Amino acid sequence: MRQSVSLVTLGVSDYERAKSFYESLGWSVAWEAQETSFFQANGVVVVLWSREKLAADLGIEDDGARWGGVALAHNVGSDAEVDRVVEEARAQGAEITRAPAPTFYGGYAGGFRDLDGHVWEVAHNPHWTFAADGSVVLPT
Amino acid sequence: MRQSVSLVTLGVSDYERAKSFYESLGWSVAWEAQETSFFQANGVVVVLWSREKLAADLGIEDDGARWGGVALAHNVGSDAEVDRVVEEARAQGAEITRAPAPTFYGGYAGGFRDLDGHVWEVAHNPHWTFAADGSVVLPT
Repeated sequence: MRQSVSLVTLGVSDYERAKSFYESLGWSVAWEAQETSFFQANGVVVVLWSREKLAADLGIEDDGARWGGVALAHNVGSDAEVDRVVEEARAQGAEITRAPAPTFYGGYAGGFRDLDGHVWEVAHNPHWTFAADGSVVLPT
Repeated sequence: MRQSVSLVTLGVSDYERAKSFYESLGWSVAWEAQETSFFQANGVVVVLWSREKLAADLGIEDDGARWGGVALAHNVGSDAEVDRVVEEARAQGAEITRAPAPTFYGGYAGGFRDLDGHVWEVAHNPHWTFAADGSVVLPT
């Protein structure tokens, strides 16, 4: 697993309210689709997305107890690399919450929780490109 | 507030176990002190630190219900900028969990939760330097 965080997704209960909050602090959305905001930060991309959809997408039971609504995404260059990283995490005792499978946006992703329950998505998005350091370069 | 995430801190219950997990996935610690690991990722730095200490440091009640143990840090260049960003967040309805105050490492920091409860630390660490995009350049 390369040492990179492609996205930090913050699950939100009221999308427009959350987007307005960050815009009020001076942030600008780089890309928006289907009530999802992508903010280009320093290398990492901050995403606002429905907490409910995020939980469902990653196979997390959002019972209000163990999960705070944050997911880190580790994007890789191929479906096979998604499989490989998820298997590495499983071998180290991670809980696999989403077996690698096609995504709604035409990509491929799996998900796991580390030993403290922190949530990672491992994804291949064929529509995106990456800088040498693993940072996502958002479509413009 | 500049559009940057300096650190993503994952609160952990067993420090050595958590560190071993990420090392087993191929990650290397760039800097380690007082049971805190700093991994240099793409711009952002991933930190492993005691969940208990992280909660106490940021003024979060870790009752196992609302918080998942993740904190994002937004590092800035001066104590005055910490004050300014925290006041901006307060004005937008954020809950201030830590009024800006000196830190144990000789810096200055405040903390807030956004409208969905996501935790941000706003910090000035005079021992660190930053790239133009807001990324931390860890001491080597």
